[in-house]
Amino acid sequence: MSYEHRVRVRYAETDQMGVVHHGSYVLYFEEARTAYMASLGCPYGDLEKAGIGLAVRKMNVRYRAPAVYEDELIVDTHIERVRGASLAFRYEIRRASDGTRLVDGETDLACIGLEGTSRTPRPLPDSLQELLGRHRVDG
Amino acid sequence: MSYEHRVRVRYAETDQMGVVHHGSYVLYFEEARTAYMASLGCPYGDLEKAGIGLAVRKMNVRYRAPAVYEDELIVDTHIERVRGASLAFRYEIRRASDGTRLVDGETDLACIGLEGTSRTPRPLPDSLQELLGRHRVDG
Amino acid sequence: MSYEHRVRVRYAETDQMGVVHHGSYVLYFEEARTAYMASLGCPYGDLEKAGIGLAVRKMNVRYRAPAVYEDELIVDTHIERVRGASLAFRYEIRRASDGTRLVDGETDLACIGLEGTSRTPRPLPDSLQELLGRHRVDG
Amino acid sequence: MSYEHRVRVRYAETDQMGVVHHGSYVLYFEEARTAYMASLGCPYGDLEKAGIGLAVRKMNVRYRAPAVYEDELIVDTHIERVRGASLAFRYEIRRASDGTRLVDGETDLACIGLEGTSRTPRPLPDSLQELLGRHRVDG
Repeated sequence: MSYEHRVRVRYAETDQMGVVHHGSYVLYFEEARTAYMASLGCPYGDLEKAGIGLAVRKMNVRYRAPAVYEDELIVDTHIERVRGASLAFRYEIRRASDGTRLVDGETDLACIGLEGTSRTPRPLPDSLQELLGRHRVDG
Repeated sequence: MSYEHRVRVRYAETDQMGVVHHGSYVLYFEEARTAYMASLGCPYGDLEKAGIGLAVRKMNVRYRAPAVYEDELIVDTHIERVRGASLAFRYEIRRASDGTRLVDGETDLACIGLEGTSRTPRPLPDSLQELLGRHRVDG
Repeated sequence: MSYEHRVRVRYAETDQMGVVHHGSYVLYFEEARTAYMASLGCPYGDLEKAGIGLAVRKMNVRYRAPAVYEDELIVDTHIERVRGASLAFRYEIRRASDGTRLVDGETDLACIGLEGTSRTPRPLPDSLQELLGRHRVDG
Repeated sequence: MSYEHRVRVRYAETDQMGVVHHGSYVLYFEEARTAYMASLGCPYGDLEKAGIGLAVRKMNVRYRAPAVYEDELIVDTHIERVRGASLAFRYEIRRASDGTRLVDGETDLACIGLEGTSRTPRPLPDSLQELLGRHRVDG
């Protein structure tokens, strides 16, 4: 199972090379990941209200072809791993108009407690682990 | 009295028009303003630790000429008003290499309490009011 | 006539005060303005391909109440002035869930030629002036 | 040999978790990489003027500990590979005040021609290959 999120490139996300700046895709990944979680009934904001955060620990990105201003992008997002305090998502971004594959990426997240400043890892709540685990796809 | 802050244009701050995106100057203003306060012995982070925030209420910007990638910019910053819960800064940005005046702006800030979620205005602490008032320049 | 554009707050657009950073609204204005122009059959990208740019000359923003993460925002956008080489847009941003008015703003844009590096102002093309003029609303 | 670049965290680069957003480090890498090249007598802007761009093809980031607002960061940057059309940089970011290692990363870049829209890879100019090769460090 994967989740399809759409995003339209903003002018400010381009750079003087005339294409989308490579850093902008990090924001598309994050937007897609949290939209996916919200679609599963688990908005990220609710986690934080419950004192739990998901912090990015690792990110790998592979740029295949550039997106340009006003492109509509499809971010296919799936859950690759749910285990203990750790969660991994994979993303494939393609241009909506012609299907060109533009960017792939993955992010590993750690579940952390937000009380105080220590930010120590803690297991994902059982209900979340069960919910996300059910939507996991073997990478 | 005014404070001179220098900033180097980042590649990501350009857009496909080949110049610095107009939104980037908002970040230069903020960086200059907080560097100024830190230089006066009052880093903004310390205010927040004391439960006080400064929230932007109004911002006016006038764009005269574009900056480009790798330009070094000088942000002349001065305090225009200190009164009750309110604080106003003015900025003039010019290119270091040739002095060309690029962007002017001003921001009005309100002092707010950060406890809870109400964010109600509250008078600037006396010590801060006194300190900033001493550096005020008539606009 | 005004154009209603919707945008969802991204996590990266918040700051440590727990609200949307004041600079993020500049991007919402731009996204709304260009979506409006595209809806009128005049995508901004096409202008640039024709050698014409619209550069922001002046921006005023008034912050009334903060937006928070995951808020859906409505950006009401209208054209306030079309004259010669100059174009003005006004924006009102409110929270979709409860209608709270959050931020107002206006931007003045100048029509410029993109050939070479001089970027001199030039009159808006007649067709664009006519099209936008028809959708103008008295401020 | 490695190059030490310093950057001060901006307020806008924090998020509501109270730490620097993970996307901000991408900008620190880029700033450090281009400052390094400028220090070698080869500002990136000059390359573009000569019709050559360096496009990021791959990026890996590992987040070890969070930076916070007003931290001064040291970005140690070195050249890991120079070969044909390809160039790799490695980065280690640590907090200046206490030396804590915060983030590691690497980016692979491809040399591309900027004429037209094809953006095909082309070998790095010999002079650049030689210059950067001399500063390469085995990973």
